[in-house]
Amino acid sequence: MSGHEYEPSAEERLIARHFRPLATHPGALGLGDDAAVLTPPSGCDLVLTTDGVIAGVHFFPDDPPDKIGRKALRMNLSDLAAKGARPVGFLLALALPAATDEAWLAAFAAGLAEDAARYDCPLFGGDTDRTPGPASVSIAAFGAVPHGRMVRRSTAKIGDCVVVTGTIGDAALGVELRRGEGRRDPAERWRLTAAMAAHLRQRYLLPEPRNAIAEAVLRHATAAMDVSDGLAGDLAKLCRASSVAAEIDVARLPLSEAARTALAAEPALIETVLTGGDDYEIVLALAPKDLAAFCAAARAAGVPATEIGRIAAGRGARFIHDGRTLAFARPSFSHF
Amino acid sequence: MSGHEYEPSAEERLIARHFRPLATHPGALGLGDDAAVLTPPSGCDLVLTTDGVIAGVHFFPDDPPDKIGRKALRMNLSDLAAKGARPVGFLLALALPAATDEAWLAAFAAGLAEDAARYDCPLFGGDTDRTPGPASVSIAAFGAVPHGRMVRRSTAKIGDCVVVTGTIGDAALGVELRRGEGRRDPAERWRLTAAMAAHLRQRYLLPEPRNAIAEAVLRHATAAMDVSDGLAGDLAKLCRASSVAAEIDVARLPLSEAARTALAAEPALIETVLTGGDDYEIVLALAPKDLAAFCAAARAAGVPATEIGRIAAGRGARFIHDGRTLAFARPSFSHF
Repeated sequence: MSGHEYEPSAEERLIARHFRPLATHPGALGLGDDAAVLTPPSGCDLVLTTDGVIAGVHFFPDDPPDKIGRKALRMNLSDLAAKGARPVGFLLALALPAATDEAWLAAFAAGLAEDAARYDCPLFGGDTDRTPGPASVSIAAFGAVPHGRMVRRSTAKIGDCVVVTGTIGDAALGVELRRGEGRRDPAERWRLTAAMAAHLRQRYLLPEPRNAIAEAVLRHATAAMDVSDGLAGDLAKLCRASSVAAEIDVARLPLSEAARTALAAEPALIETVLTGGDDYEIVLALAPKDLAAFCAAARAAGVPATEIGRIAAGRGARFIHDGRTLAFARPSFSHF
Repeated sequence: MSGHEYEPSAEERLIARHFRPLATHPGALGLGDDAAVLTPPSGCDLVLTTDGVIAGVHFFPDDPPDKIGRKALRMNLSDLAAKGARPVGFLLALALPAATDEAWLAAFAAGLAEDAARYDCPLFGGDTDRTPGPASVSIAAFGAVPHGRMVRRSTAKIGDCVVVTGTIGDAALGVELRRGEGRRDPAERWRLTAAMAAHLRQRYLLPEPRNAIAEAVLRHATAAMDVSDGLAGDLAKLCRASSVAAEIDVARLPLSEAARTALAAEPALIETVLTGGDDYEIVLALAPKDLAAFCAAARAAGVPATEIGRIAAGRGARFIHDGRTLAFARPSFSHF
């Protein structure tokens, strides 16, 4: 500053160049104020969630930068979908190593912009810092549901059907493939075609959150949660919160052709499939009378939905295979 | 999982033990769901902000853990105060190195709990990860203002008085003291008493956000922002957003006795005072007719407020000392 004219700092220029295009909501004030302002949608509650990714923990440092921000945003969008909420917007906290170049940042922001538009979830504000550590992306996302209607984990009823969207275990197998690169290739051991291996890797790289059926979840589910730490552990959490049990028929689990092929070659992978996490599907309980309507709504939205079992009296989620209950060494992904 | 009973993971136990006590709002659902639910206060807009701290960047890795979370929360509270908003709650994203022990975490959470209670800003949800990098704490905070009333940067008017709360430059001098430890001690060079040096260090360690006068800011300010990157650069940002200039009388700047003493010994420190940042005071513009009422409200709330200059036609913030405009090498703190 000459004392007479203010030159925007490098940080402000970076934000203006890469992130202002994502701040399409008028309340974001073009990212030019201390805070954003949101007039809550009339008659609605806000649904609040936060999730993020760290290089070397949740993604590989050499992953394409356009996928990294999208993955972080989609993890949050998946939580909103499971609660029956429509996206409203998000805040972004970004920590970048000094070596981050302009091209990385441009690709990162462009990917994020694509998803902000696709899911109608604009950026409301952010915080950008240098870090001596790995790149990290933390997102806080807001959704809206009609007042009093957020779908919870704790409200499943005995006799409900248990339904899961999409397919289970692909991302957990995909990350095993990534980790196995250059060693004895798991893809070979699992007898996967190149297309199958690519499918599993892609499912880890970029989740497909199920926001297209948030409305159907809101209308029909008695309880729901997103599957992020593995179906076994996450369903067990839902059961604990609802003080019920679940009995799941392993033969009915929705599996991709790639996962089926890997399991045929190595049946012990069922534990990876059920406990590895990163599915970003929705598991929900609903009254049997609502099953057909929910499945029709899911089909109309292009989202597969499969009934896999029932809510019962008792405790815990039992995965029953050929009449026997599976036991897992580690039921749920945990950072600690 | 035995298949029959679910044992909470280490991550869930950690959250329950240390963070559930901060989740006092019913909408936080005891941190036991995918997301929290907030019924927006009637007739209000929500004010959204995010800010955080990284070890080695925004705090010293050996800072007392009870201060670290509080500092991160207070940085966000300061933004809310400057916008005239009352705190509603926050989301916490925590990344911890593997070496973080239980005692550190307990102290961290206890400090945060103290401030969540003090500022009536409960925890709504969080995300806790292991990181191979330094500890980092990212917070997204929500406040409430009457609909359409959020105080902005862009609405200062020519002829307004410029007022700043508290004292300026203490934290910037405090961090210099911390960096100088073990070398030629700046405290000696600046002829500080032990109490003065302690005051400056404390101001860096733990800001005092001005939420007590958020209501007065809302009532009287034409424009406001929090001073986090240094008064010179932040006031210049306010001027740019409002398409005005500011003329500031350096002799009227509110300085602590410690800062006055350091400046007397080393007059060039005026640049550190005005551009070093971490003040977490509020700079505001208000109509001259409202000055007395604002200052009375601030006094009643125990917050010092000082008129330091005027909004004028033109561009940029001019800091005038003995008839000359100061020029700074680096007007505003920037990470990039």
